Amino acid sequence: AAPAPADSAKAEKIYKATCMACHGAGVLGAPKFGDKAAWGPRVAKGKPALYTNALNGFKMMPPRGGNPALKDDEVKAVVDYMIAKSN
Amino acid sequence: AAPAPADSAKAEKIYKATCMACHGAGVLGAPKFGDKAAWGPRVAKGKPALYTNALNGFKMMPPRGGNPALKDDEVKAVVDYMIAKSN
Repeated sequence: AAPAPADSAKAEKIYKATCMACHGAGVLGAPKFGDKAAWGPRVAKGKPALYTNALNGFKMMPPRGGNPALKDDEVKAVVDYMIAKSN
Repeated sequence: AAPAPADSAKAEKIYKATCMACHGAGVLGAPKFGDKAAWGPRVAKGKPALYTNALNGFKMMPPRGGNPALKDDEVKAVVDYMIAKSN
């Protein structure tokens, strides 16, 4: 389900502070925010796989998008947020 | 010591294929290739620390610069190469 409003605002803040550097423009192979074609195959892997990749790092993406201060549920919330806006 | 010529050509190839994406322009906080001011504090940490960061990933940098196929000594060679050209 899409994140609840309050969560969405929080997730958006995390997205802007940490994820947008690569996902905003879709650099270094990052699926671009809002790009349904880019996110389709990712979403098809299922959220657990995307959470794992976001937490551990994947290809050019560093663990937790390069922000080690993010808690697990914050990383998952921002993954949910990006999916909800790119799907 | 600066890498021997043959090594240097090999290291340059690795640099261009893997490292330049961030170090070429110095994006996402990466110390820009050839930028003595940016590399000074890094070099001051000593090569072992830089090798570790390059192998394990550090802040926005993914492990092995995002290329898991790189062997340890290839990662070290390209670190040496970047230092030699930025110091």
